[in-house]
Amino acid sequence: MEMNLGITERLKPILDKVTALMHDEVLNADVEFHKEVGTTGNRWSMTARQQEILETLQSKAKEQGLWNFWLTDSDKGYGLSTVEYAHLAEQMGWCVLGPQVFNCAAPDTGNMEVLERYGTAEHKEKWLEPLLQSHIRSAYLMTEPDVASSDATNLKFSAVLDGDDYVLNGEKYWSSGAGDERCKVYILMAKTAGDEAPRHSRHSMFVVPAETKGIEVLRPMMVFGHDDAPHGHMHIHFNNVRIPKSALLLGEGRGFEVSQGRLGPGRIHHCMRAIGQAERALQLMCQRGMNRTAFGKPLVKLGGNYDVIANCRIEIEQARLLCLKAAWMMDQGDMSAATPYISQIKVVAPNMALKVIDEAIQMFGGTGVSQDTPLADMYMQMRTLRFADGPDSVHRMQVARKELAQYR
Amino acid sequence: MEMNLGITERLKPILDKVTALMHDEVLNADVEFHKEVGTTGNRWSMTARQQEILETLQSKAKEQGLWNFWLTDSDKGYGLSTVEYAHLAEQMGWCVLGPQVFNCAAPDTGNMEVLERYGTAEHKEKWLEPLLQSHIRSAYLMTEPDVASSDATNLKFSAVLDGDDYVLNGEKYWSSGAGDERCKVYILMAKTAGDEAPRHSRHSMFVVPAETKGIEVLRPMMVFGHDDAPHGHMHIHFNNVRIPKSALLLGEGRGFEVSQGRLGPGRIHHCMRAIGQAERALQLMCQRGMNRTAFGKPLVKLGGNYDVIANCRIEIEQARLLCLKAAWMMDQGDMSAATPYISQIKVVAPNMALKVIDEAIQMFGGTGVSQDTPLADMYMQMRTLRFADGPDSVHRMQVARKELAQYR
Amino acid sequence: MEMNLGITERLKPILDKVTALMHDEVLNADVEFHKEVGTTGNRWSMTARQQEILETLQSKAKEQGLWNFWLTDSDKGYGLSTVEYAHLAEQMGWCVLGPQVFNCAAPDTGNMEVLERYGTAEHKEKWLEPLLQSHIRSAYLMTEPDVASSDATNLKFSAVLDGDDYVLNGEKYWSSGAGDERCKVYILMAKTAGDEAPRHSRHSMFVVPAETKGIEVLRPMMVFGHDDAPHGHMHIHFNNVRIPKSALLLGEGRGFEVSQGRLGPGRIHHCMRAIGQAERALQLMCQRGMNRTAFGKPLVKLGGNYDVIANCRIEIEQARLLCLKAAWMMDQGDMSAATPYISQIKVVAPNMALKVIDEAIQMFGGTGVSQDTPLADMYMQMRTLRFADGPDSVHRMQVARKELAQYR
Amino acid sequence: MEMNLGITERLKPILDKVTALMHDEVLNADVEFHKEVGTTGNRWSMTARQQEILETLQSKAKEQGLWNFWLTDSDKGYGLSTVEYAHLAEQMGWCVLGPQVFNCAAPDTGNMEVLERYGTAEHKEKWLEPLLQSHIRSAYLMTEPDVASSDATNLKFSAVLDGDDYVLNGEKYWSSGAGDERCKVYILMAKTAGDEAPRHSRHSMFVVPAETKGIEVLRPMMVFGHDDAPHGHMHIHFNNVRIPKSALLLGEGRGFEVSQGRLGPGRIHHCMRAIGQAERALQLMCQRGMNRTAFGKPLVKLGGNYDVIANCRIEIEQARLLCLKAAWMMDQGDMSAATPYISQIKVVAPNMALKVIDEAIQMFGGTGVSQDTPLADMYMQMRTLRFADGPDSVHRMQVARKELAQYR
Repeated sequence: MEMNLGITERLKPILDKVTALMHDEVLNADVEFHKEVGTTGNRWSMTARQQEILETLQSKAKEQGLWNFWLTDSDKGYGLSTVEYAHLAEQMGWCVLGPQVFNCAAPDTGNMEVLERYGTAEHKEKWLEPLLQSHIRSAYLMTEPDVASSDATNLKFSAVLDGDDYVLNGEKYWSSGAGDERCKVYILMAKTAGDEAPRHSRHSMFVVPAETKGIEVLRPMMVFGHDDAPHGHMHIHFNNVRIPKSALLLGEGRGFEVSQGRLGPGRIHHCMRAIGQAERALQLMCQRGMNRTAFGKPLVKLGGNYDVIANCRIEIEQARLLCLKAAWMMDQGDMSAATPYISQIKVVAPNMALKVIDEAIQMFGGTGVSQDTPLADMYMQMRTLRFADGPDSVHRMQVARKELAQYR
Repeated sequence: MEMNLGITERLKPILDKVTALMHDEVLNADVEFHKEVGTTGNRWSMTARQQEILETLQSKAKEQGLWNFWLTDSDKGYGLSTVEYAHLAEQMGWCVLGPQVFNCAAPDTGNMEVLERYGTAEHKEKWLEPLLQSHIRSAYLMTEPDVASSDATNLKFSAVLDGDDYVLNGEKYWSSGAGDERCKVYILMAKTAGDEAPRHSRHSMFVVPAETKGIEVLRPMMVFGHDDAPHGHMHIHFNNVRIPKSALLLGEGRGFEVSQGRLGPGRIHHCMRAIGQAERALQLMCQRGMNRTAFGKPLVKLGGNYDVIANCRIEIEQARLLCLKAAWMMDQGDMSAATPYISQIKVVAPNMALKVIDEAIQMFGGTGVSQDTPLADMYMQMRTLRFADGPDSVHRMQVARKELAQYR
Repeated sequence: MEMNLGITERLKPILDKVTALMHDEVLNADVEFHKEVGTTGNRWSMTARQQEILETLQSKAKEQGLWNFWLTDSDKGYGLSTVEYAHLAEQMGWCVLGPQVFNCAAPDTGNMEVLERYGTAEHKEKWLEPLLQSHIRSAYLMTEPDVASSDATNLKFSAVLDGDDYVLNGEKYWSSGAGDERCKVYILMAKTAGDEAPRHSRHSMFVVPAETKGIEVLRPMMVFGHDDAPHGHMHIHFNNVRIPKSALLLGEGRGFEVSQGRLGPGRIHHCMRAIGQAERALQLMCQRGMNRTAFGKPLVKLGGNYDVIANCRIEIEQARLLCLKAAWMMDQGDMSAATPYISQIKVVAPNMALKVIDEAIQMFGGTGVSQDTPLADMYMQMRTLRFADGPDSVHRMQVARKELAQYR
Repeated sequence: MEMNLGITERLKPILDKVTALMHDEVLNADVEFHKEVGTTGNRWSMTARQQEILETLQSKAKEQGLWNFWLTDSDKGYGLSTVEYAHLAEQMGWCVLGPQVFNCAAPDTGNMEVLERYGTAEHKEKWLEPLLQSHIRSAYLMTEPDVASSDATNLKFSAVLDGDDYVLNGEKYWSSGAGDERCKVYILMAKTAGDEAPRHSRHSMFVVPAETKGIEVLRPMMVFGHDDAPHGHMHIHFNNVRIPKSALLLGEGRGFEVSQGRLGPGRIHHCMRAIGQAERALQLMCQRGMNRTAFGKPLVKLGGNYDVIANCRIEIEQARLLCLKAAWMMDQGDMSAATPYISQIKVVAPNMALKVIDEAIQMFGGTGVSQDTPLADMYMQMRTLRFADGPDSVHRMQVARKELAQYR
């Protein structure tokens, strides 16, 4: 069977435009954007300059039709394949602002996908449309502080039907993007049945307006001491929050069905961007190694640096190919066949990127962990990806199970 | 650009037949074949039973037209692409006998390629034709005992023109396949110019009949104490060996040109087979882990074995994709663009296979290093591949140079 | 020869007291102390509560005579051996506040050692005495922004004699501890000779009051986005800063002599504390793994976690022994014999600690990188230690040179 | 508490003599000894020259009183501590013949220890005395082909009391040393109770003369294709083998008690020798790297070789210290406290040695796996040590259990 992992004819011009915009403008804009954070005293609302930066870039993207690529299987989007999207996502992933410029940022893409697939007409009008325009942003509320959320059947945040409303109680944290004042809607998993129900039918998925009464954002979760403002990974408390029945997606007990549909693409999108991060780190590493001199030689000529660079290149290349293959498997339409490949790349991509970034840091010395390079931020982003959407160990377990199944 | 790494329509039926023959017959035959070695007292000539095994299998292959796949770019062959060949070579690589059954074994394929490209009509008639029929075998004489052959410009074996003959003097070792009594012809690199010539123009390539006077096979080089009979990696002494001028390929000083043409495909063919070795090791590991019990559980359920299995699967998958990409690069026809990818996979494939085989050995315990599994033999084959056709470090150096070139 | 790496009779009661104070009070106090940072608006001056915390603990330490242990070879101190100090430093190293409580914190200890060995009577009275009392703090100004400081002969910050004064010009950064308002004195390396002088005789060491005119602290260098306040790793600009001739230590051109005397102990002290950090991370990892449940089991029983824990224990144990041996080598009085061992542990300790901390983070999931555990801070501290006082590669080079010297 | 891991006064002259004999004579003799194997047609009996080599060296050792050092806790021996023995064993471990020269070879030392502790007067006279003189050799029969012997409670070889005799039936393999014609006695574990007995009380230990009727040596187990003659790791079949009741050691059901007493020292002795192997490999690697030239430089100056050498030195140093600490723990007399340290070093030592040997092989290229260096043999010895006396995973499990026990 054909397994074309290359850049198709239709993708080529799009990819060239995205790459050009990223390198010509977005990378520098990203630096300025993040320096602005908190200059007005409020770290969670964008400054005027930040708005200007973002809007200018988004306009340039929209003008060229570079928007909402992630809608791979919809007539609202480009109809790109997942493989094609992977090539784009890698380029957009070079910096944090990148995916926002093209309205392809997490967690919005996953949330939009949920709304598109499972939302009511009302959900679509009220939330999906403004999200598709990047007028608002969204968050996905899954992880909870008191349980090992890697086993999602542990989740205990409760939703109880009371008349025509569900009443929500509990805590969620690591709700990424919920810090941003533009974040207006949550997709939230809650437990709707007791332990008498089958393990994977106890939970349901809801659409919850962020400004509903009883919702309190307690604090940002810090990542290596950083609040990741204005995005933020928030700790949120729900105290008797009432939402209408119509907020329920798909039906009671079908939360895992929704989350699986959401997490597959979400995971691989993170991985595609991780490859972009690694490419950027390798570029920085090589440039530093060529331009800095010690003991009378450029750093690249010292010790094992050639080996370091070669190994980074080799690992990036392999990870990219695996990511593309996982994307291709998704494009074949059999999600259960694709899942182990997504698990594989979910293990590989962040670990590979961390290794490359860490080597780049070492080439820079102190500068590598400082504010003078993007490497420390990149490291923090990638480090969390080793447990976001499932820790390495859970994904390895999935891969091993699949492997062993053929010998049973 | 299209980059189809999958199994094409025309390849599918061929691959299915090769895979079937391998699993139905060749794997078992390989065990019997190697147990026969030395039973007649001479380890270097095949026993009657060995001949029978090999001829039977070769007949079955030929009958189905499964023969000389490696001739990817010739009208004598299938006209397969290198990518297509890679899929076949992986399957044939599951055991040592595999490639011989389909006349796709090293070093013959590389030598046939040299003869096809650079040989005279006489060379073709005398050596290429019987090689294409597997009536004889061949060896490639490059490595020398006294110099670091990883830097091939060090080679000092000499060829001096004397009248109409070249006179050869010196020693070669690790001449793989030269042990086999069927080996009738050598492709040999010799130094034909002094140090006043440019480094890469001092050497020339020759076609040398194995039975020429003055050639003495001194001993087999052992690999972990094993002579690899009847193949053998021989240490050979040349004492005033006279060969006619016509034995020279391409021209004096063009030895590296010939060897580069030979080594590119040779290297990647080894890597394709290494992936087959790794797949086999993973299969053996899983089967053992499912069927053996300790502490009341199957071994796979103990300790980190799920992680081990998942990591092996992930590394194999990545290596295969990188190998296919390198093959695809070769198919694009720009050898200098393809070379760094060949270097990459040349580092990855044997190291990956060694890791998988080593984990399989550990799952088996003592049995893993014993004659009761093929794992120890596989380990030895793969271990030598980390320096055969260039050590890891030289290939990493090539990859790093290419990476850094873009920043100069 | 005796090589006693254990806990001596005289050390035992001291070590018990230090350990008790650390676990009973300092660990908790450290959390409170760091939460106070910046609550008054100024991140670089201690709050009243911070002062209270630190003074209370220091008083308790002093009352029990637990003070200035690092003075291993002086009659002002305990006269402990470096091995004995290593056992103490490991315990004090469990948290950032620990070493300060016992006045054994970097960079003060190294600076005090410099002042004690090479300072004039005036230096001792003015700077050493208050440092010994922890009334002031100090910084060590070596690294510069524009050169690869791993090769310290590159340093170009200049000191020019002008009449009875030296005039200092240039920039220093990563000046650890210079953020703290209590920091009153710098030990600073400057270039005093041109390139006509031998490479290692071009630099000199000076004692510089922090409040001298012309010194401007430009900014804190961030570590993974964190300013490490109130300690701080500052970027400092010197503009025609005049200091008297008497500020010169040992003599012109002898800067490397001073820095070698300072860096040996400084490096190993960092390593001793790194082992404490690793022990703490392993404790946190085990506790989390025992107390958290997923898939119906405590986390420690899942996947390869037993292997992870065993490997951490094994690596800590080995690193501790190597650290103790390096300390013992120092105690034998032959610094050139001890140096390769210090290089060895300087490579091992931070890398080992990073590995253990990283595994602990993974066991905690998101909580591991958040403000709810000390792990992220620990990671940041240890990560910088891979280039502070020389990057891994320089230390490996030293070890290899020593190894190869015996075969020359 | 004192923890002296150095070389004591009394050890110094002994160690010097052992080291001198090893380097002056044994290393070369070992090469000649192993080349002789099989030259008479029988690989399992020593040739006259082999006998001469061994006897000459043993005489030299005995003359200098360098004999039976392993008897650490007996008045028949030196009364050395385990730490002192570790220093000696490292030196003796540089080659296979080394330990035999000083009558400190496995499995004899472990078997002698069993006979010394648990044997009857008759056992001592008949077997221990000639073993102490190296007049005969012995084997330890534990591992069985049909069960996962890493969990020794699986062992099913049976011993049934019939009148005054035990009748033995079953198979043993990997019986190291049982190939040698000098091997006259086996220490053998057999199952004497059914599954109604507690798991660790079902097995018993016996003393069995090798020439008893019904014992058939089926074949040598090969290690990477090598039979390790004349030592051999034999597969042995027992068919109604009758031995008297008095052959039972300690009592029925106490087999594990005996084996634990035997395995502790046995394991650490292997580790001590592994460190010697690693030191030898590092020496060979450095010598090769200094003396061989490629690309115009000695190999050590190419690529990451300095890092490779430094890392090997660092790992050896750490492993040695851990081995010495485990030995010191044993010397403290609390075997249950010492056990986790023995497990730690049992994981570390062979893995470390394999890594160093593998890097040395890579530095040598093809020569590294050939008969022209001892590296391939060393690799094979060390590779089996990763499951001999318990696989890595079982030892890691022990270490983790001990670690976690403190948090229960």
